[in-house]
Amino acid sequence: MATEALTIDRARSAERIERDIETLAGPDYTRSDEAIRRYAYTPEYRATLDYFVRELESIGFEMSYDPVGTLVARNRPPGEKVFGVGSHCDSNRNGGKYDGTMGVVTALEVCRLNGELGLDLPLQLVSFLEEEGSGFGQMLLGSRITAQRVTEEELREEFRAIDDGRPFWEHAEEAGYEPARWRESLRILDDLTGWIELHIEQARVLQDTGNRIGVVNAIAGYIHADIWVEGRADHAGATPMDFRLDVAPTAAQIVLEVERLAKEAGNGTVGTVGEIEFEPGIINVVPGKARLSLDTRGVVEEAFRSVARDIESFAREVAGQSGLQAVYRQRQTLPATPLDERIVGALEMAAKGTGEPFMVMPSGAAHDTMCVADHVPSAMVFVPCRDGISHSPDEDADPADAALAAGIILSAIRAL
Amino acid sequence: MATEALTIDRARSAERIERDIETLAGPDYTRSDEAIRRYAYTPEYRATLDYFVRELESIGFEMSYDPVGTLVARNRPPGEKVFGVGSHCDSNRNGGKYDGTMGVVTALEVCRLNGELGLDLPLQLVSFLEEEGSGFGQMLLGSRITAQRVTEEELREEFRAIDDGRPFWEHAEEAGYEPARWRESLRILDDLTGWIELHIEQARVLQDTGNRIGVVNAIAGYIHADIWVEGRADHAGATPMDFRLDVAPTAAQIVLEVERLAKEAGNGTVGTVGEIEFEPGIINVVPGKARLSLDTRGVVEEAFRSVARDIESFAREVAGQSGLQAVYRQRQTLPATPLDERIVGALEMAAKGTGEPFMVMPSGAAHDTMCVADHVPSAMVFVPCRDGISHSPDEDADPADAALAAGIILSAIRAL
Repeated sequence: MATEALTIDRARSAERIERDIETLAGPDYTRSDEAIRRYAYTPEYRATLDYFVRELESIGFEMSYDPVGTLVARNRPPGEKVFGVGSHCDSNRNGGKYDGTMGVVTALEVCRLNGELGLDLPLQLVSFLEEEGSGFGQMLLGSRITAQRVTEEELREEFRAIDDGRPFWEHAEEAGYEPARWRESLRILDDLTGWIELHIEQARVLQDTGNRIGVVNAIAGYIHADIWVEGRADHAGATPMDFRLDVAPTAAQIVLEVERLAKEAGNGTVGTVGEIEFEPGIINVVPGKARLSLDTRGVVEEAFRSVARDIESFAREVAGQSGLQAVYRQRQTLPATPLDERIVGALEMAAKGTGEPFMVMPSGAAHDTMCVADHVPSAMVFVPCRDGISHSPDEDADPADAALAAGIILSAIRAL
Repeated sequence: MATEALTIDRARSAERIERDIETLAGPDYTRSDEAIRRYAYTPEYRATLDYFVRELESIGFEMSYDPVGTLVARNRPPGEKVFGVGSHCDSNRNGGKYDGTMGVVTALEVCRLNGELGLDLPLQLVSFLEEEGSGFGQMLLGSRITAQRVTEEELREEFRAIDDGRPFWEHAEEAGYEPARWRESLRILDDLTGWIELHIEQARVLQDTGNRIGVVNAIAGYIHADIWVEGRADHAGATPMDFRLDVAPTAAQIVLEVERLAKEAGNGTVGTVGEIEFEPGIINVVPGKARLSLDTRGVVEEAFRSVARDIESFAREVAGQSGLQAVYRQRQTLPATPLDERIVGALEMAAKGTGEPFMVMPSGAAHDTMCVADHVPSAMVFVPCRDGISHSPDEDADPADAALAAGIILSAIRAL
């Protein structure tokens, strides 16, 4: 295990990362004048992959694609063990320059430094497609295909392009890929001894705590659900308080209980009511029906699952106390993903070695690494984004932080 | 003062009331196949007035109109004192058969009984226009013109037809009236010694308490307002609980406080949050902005006004405690209208005399009588409507209750 610190020209790395990011924000790489908008099988997405191909070929990497178009670049022949780095380079439809792309760009910088510093570590860069779901409405689609978390029926029929309604399958074929061989996508993970993904944080914890680096030790699982409360709509002027079956106070109690339960659960568990609707939704009518959304997440399974379980029984109970009815229905759920302690430890050591402020933290958002981690020891690195703004043209992050992260990632891989 | 009870054939009155109501629910009297929809200056509204004209002329009443088309029918020449009865016969755009119309029909029945029983009490029936605001978007428009609660600018320019956007003024002129003389509308109240309006209750208090008659002793005033809470939208997964400026819990506290304050205020005060919105309103985003509506009403001015005042300061305080901001803005307000004790007392006596279950109650909803009561001692009588449903084709009420009310109103007028 190599322990001497690497001497990296971070200013030069930051310049290169900035140049990559700004190039890929140019008109050839986005379908919108006002935002970054790129998704699989469009000319702009193809141009983005081609940019990475040119850059990686120039430093001696061999390029290939999995059967659906995931970009795989290696500095060792197939069959030899390599360490994986990468992220995704598609964007939200109204996206910014950094979400995803900065991860691939930083992985590219890791590969550049690896050569320049004469380390010659065995590396494989992966750029997953359709993480944002902008093309086919399916989040993490590329990495789910790799991890075999989809069905053939979904790829052939169910997952359809937002733009023209035609199946993923047809679009993949037209782009020159072989979706019929999609199960072979898993093989891109075969040679990996580990995996590190860099991503912008998409929240404000790093900024607000003054840290430049987040070493991610787990990715939160989540439950999305809806809670309906049913009472009776009545004339708001003519119906005395004790003649009402008003859903508003019960809905309000549920909102407060979501917050209380999430805080009580601890372990970084969060709970959010982001959507609320009253029916009929008129100022002078007592609302007879309410719908609330629940988003609860955390890295400790039992903690965030207890929020959902407890809010379901709480809703029934408080509704019942007011003569109302409550119905809870889960929309979807994903388990928490613990990350690899050894890789997390190596990243911590490497971060410490830089003397720059960093913290160990969970990821509340979902990332491709959730799918990779099923098969390969994995970790992630976060860099701050201004005010936590993401999925917006206002997204902003500092290439200097990504340069710092590139050095840390390279040091960690070398140490592993 | 006549004290002997009147002998009224209530079954016959109920039949006539039912016939009137059902006739006026026919295709000539509504612009919709699926609901009652009639408003000023339409052929259907004209036909409705003509029906009342025929019925009232047949019992010897003299017909006239005020300068905007308010129907006035009298059994005494102008200048002689008369007692006023009536309501409105326009409807909500998606209305039922009873709201308003049953009041004019019952007033007509009072006039019929007055002749048949040989009482020959001096009476004036009034049918106000545009109580519902279906034609020009202005509630209580006819009675507000009578009470001079409008400006000429509003009538000439600001109040415009929902259907074609042209001013009230033009429509009134085209219908053959003289809106330029609108100030003379007040004179239809000149000869009135008192006023009684019958209306369906539009809530479920009478039904649920088993009463057939409500003697209304006051009409609630109200405040309509909006409360905005501003925080910050953040990623619901990536933003820990203690990094949030989440508006949802504060909005929930305000909803609960509206209920608490209204109950605490007593005196029949009510408080309702009928509208609620979160922005951006997405399941996985911490809401950064909320809007709540406030409707608070009551017959005791200080009681319902204190709900609005206290919720404004409460909102500021709880928002401030969470680092948020709250803004309160009043949309509109109307003072409470106490009704005339002497007329209320006479109605109570008359109701007691029937042996049928009745109660004295406030009106939570607004009615034309609010405008009349500025100038003439006034009261109202409510009859039950099924499940409190109103402003809907499902509206249902019992002509037998209206017949009972007609007798009570006539007895009260005789006693006054």
